[in-house]
Amino acid sequence: VIVALLTDFGTRDHYVGAMKAVILSVCPDATLVDITHDIPPQDILTGALELAAACRYFPAATVFAAVVDPGVGTRRRGIATDAGGYRFVGPDNGLLSIAGRQFADAVTVELRERKYARPTISRTFEGRDRFAPAAGWLARGITLHDLGPVIDDAVSLDVPAPGRTTDGIEGAVLRVDRFGNLITNVDEATLAAAAPPRERLEIRVASQEQPIPFVDTYGDVSAHQLCALVGSSGYLEIALNGGSAAATLNATRGTAVHIVRSPIADPRSPIPDP
Amino acid sequence: VIVALLTDFGTRDHYVGAMKAVILSVCPDATLVDITHDIPPQDILTGALELAAACRYFPAATVFAAVVDPGVGTRRRGIATDAGGYRFVGPDNGLLSIAGRQFADAVTVELRERKYARPTISRTFEGRDRFAPAAGWLARGITLHDLGPVIDDAVSLDVPAPGRTTDGIEGAVLRVDRFGNLITNVDEATLAAAAPPRERLEIRVASQEQPIPFVDTYGDVSAHQLCALVGSSGYLEIALNGGSAAATLNATRGTAVHIVRSPIADPRSPIPDP
Amino acid sequence: VIVALLTDFGTRDHYVGAMKAVILSVCPDATLVDITHDIPPQDILTGALELAAACRYFPAATVFAAVVDPGVGTRRRGIATDAGGYRFVGPDNGLLSIAGRQFADAVTVELRERKYARPTISRTFEGRDRFAPAAGWLARGITLHDLGPVIDDAVSLDVPAPGRTTDGIEGAVLRVDRFGNLITNVDEATLAAAAPPRERLEIRVASQEQPIPFVDTYGDVSAHQLCALVGSSGYLEIALNGGSAAATLNATRGTAVHIVRSPIADPRSPIPDP
Repeated sequence: VIVALLTDFGTRDHYVGAMKAVILSVCPDATLVDITHDIPPQDILTGALELAAACRYFPAATVFAAVVDPGVGTRRRGIATDAGGYRFVGPDNGLLSIAGRQFADAVTVELRERKYARPTISRTFEGRDRFAPAAGWLARGITLHDLGPVIDDAVSLDVPAPGRTTDGIEGAVLRVDRFGNLITNVDEATLAAAAPPRERLEIRVASQEQPIPFVDTYGDVSAHQLCALVGSSGYLEIALNGGSAAATLNATRGTAVHIVRSPIADPRSPIPDP
Repeated sequence: VIVALLTDFGTRDHYVGAMKAVILSVCPDATLVDITHDIPPQDILTGALELAAACRYFPAATVFAAVVDPGVGTRRRGIATDAGGYRFVGPDNGLLSIAGRQFADAVTVELRERKYARPTISRTFEGRDRFAPAAGWLARGITLHDLGPVIDDAVSLDVPAPGRTTDGIEGAVLRVDRFGNLITNVDEATLAAAAPPRERLEIRVASQEQPIPFVDTYGDVSAHQLCALVGSSGYLEIALNGGSAAATLNATRGTAVHIVRSPIADPRSPIPDP
Repeated sequence: VIVALLTDFGTRDHYVGAMKAVILSVCPDATLVDITHDIPPQDILTGALELAAACRYFPAATVFAAVVDPGVGTRRRGIATDAGGYRFVGPDNGLLSIAGRQFADAVTVELRERKYARPTISRTFEGRDRFAPAAGWLARGITLHDLGPVIDDAVSLDVPAPGRTTDGIEGAVLRVDRFGNLITNVDEATLAAAAPPRERLEIRVASQEQPIPFVDTYGDVSAHQLCALVGSSGYLEIALNGGSAAATLNATRGTAVHIVRSPIADPRSPIPDP
């Protein structure tokens, strides 16, 4: 069974290693996979979005141990969610909520059963002492309900939704990736509803003048040109061929992205006979 | 069997991959776990402290391959230590010493048996050619004594110990983690001996004026407030709720931490009847 | 079977995790090893050199999934190469060519068989949708030829070769590692042909005045002294004992390295009787 990890622990300290040690102590034949440990410190929303984007590529029954946990050691609960055939373990602060919502059958329990945690629980490192062992036990074969009672009031995180305007869509940058690509909150369905064909969409980031052409892949524009496309997770993405759109556009999470139906006729339409 | 790695090799070059390739060539069913590869280059003390902090969470029989090795290729020896049911392999420069000292039963051998190294040993990469294969062979089932003769003069690293003062403890920052938490050399036992209850300890970092409150977890103080607590490895730690104590206090390894018994009465004590 | 990964995806996004998820979905008992994910974005040559340097330490039959792919989604082909008992999967942009050329028996096929890719192939993430599944299927036991027809016109990358001069060798820095070591394109055979004994070689980086002594390992010179040696991959390397040669010499990829036969008599030669 796979146990996949996502945290904001970074990789320079031994914290991730300690979590893996605990998981393997409980379930020696778990296959460990790192999604990322470089979520910006305590940035729950970025963690939740990355987890939601990554989880669906994993095989059924994968257990996800996710920790971005500014409230560690306080009364916020620990939870586990079963959804879409996956199991998620982490703090009850919304981190698991976006991933879980992707599936219709999500069930969440509170981590209450003491025997599936380490004997001593540090008030500052529940990832090691509570979430890692729970993930290990799930991988080893216990059921979600063994961990504690079902709850229906787990914290749910809002993702800023794209708005409809009279002539298009008002979106925003949700995530900037390592290449400087801007991943927005505008999904394919929203785009399709707005104004097909895509070639007639005008896309602008913030107050930028020049509209960005909508293409299929980065290489469809010349080197160092901006482009817009549906990225690998199914969301509108602004990129720069061979460079960083984030740097060029000075854009970051929250930057507005305007999509309007072009008043100009599609240049590829046949010219009517006079 | 788990082989856990800790190095200062970073992750941008192929060096760690080459070590793993060699380990798996010797022992194909080893489970590899990275503790960290981001020990500051050639910082033996940080490596030794991280290894000592991480190792005890691993299951018995885990093999640790640790390489922070400014003296690579010189006459410094290669060693392997058996301690607490774990096996450690690395250079004889103190890197393994703090981890080994945690257990009463440490035995160390020099890596002399040529057949447990690669046929050609690079003078600049013994991690790949000497330590990785030795770790692989241990994981595969040879005993410590197969690797070479017992030695009793392995290099031992000093950890700066906290000092007692007339009214408290004089400690120091040992490690700054990715969150900017300051991990000190003051352990729980030393704290307990100094001045219970903890609420009456006054903690100051360097020449800072305001004492830092002693709490159980980060969330016990308001956002962006400093706090002191016993961290997840059992040492006094200075943190900033939602931020970096290191940046706020301009503290780094070696920064002094003063702990004094407060002359002020515990405000929670019952007020005596007049 | 081992599947080893090398990409320029970095580790802060979920992209590598998604590739691993796909590989494990196809071949659940694959052993995954990261070579590096920190190839500079879109730097095909660095990726190709690291892959070539790392691959030979892996056991036979290892599958390498390598992705540095500025042309993702364009008409550049996907390929797989069988060479030296290893299998390599990636884009046809030269990334696999240096590794493959190391072995006399390289055979390359184009990835054409649709059933060994994911059902939907993103135009921006073929690593996940095309290369990861092909690597997973190879690990699971299909043959190279199952993936598509043999081609003989795969893109091949030139590595700048060292030049011979009347009195020595004209080389260049190919790679700068995390320690600031400068790895050149001058291999052991070229060095041997130039002017043994090595002690009589004068090595200069760029227009630097002082020649750099040729030694066996870093510790053969004093702390903070420059030295030249044959590094762990068999190439001439310029290093600084306890520091960064790259920073000290202000050198980067492409910086010239001059090697000349010293006119001065070897001081270690016996002094002739007068």
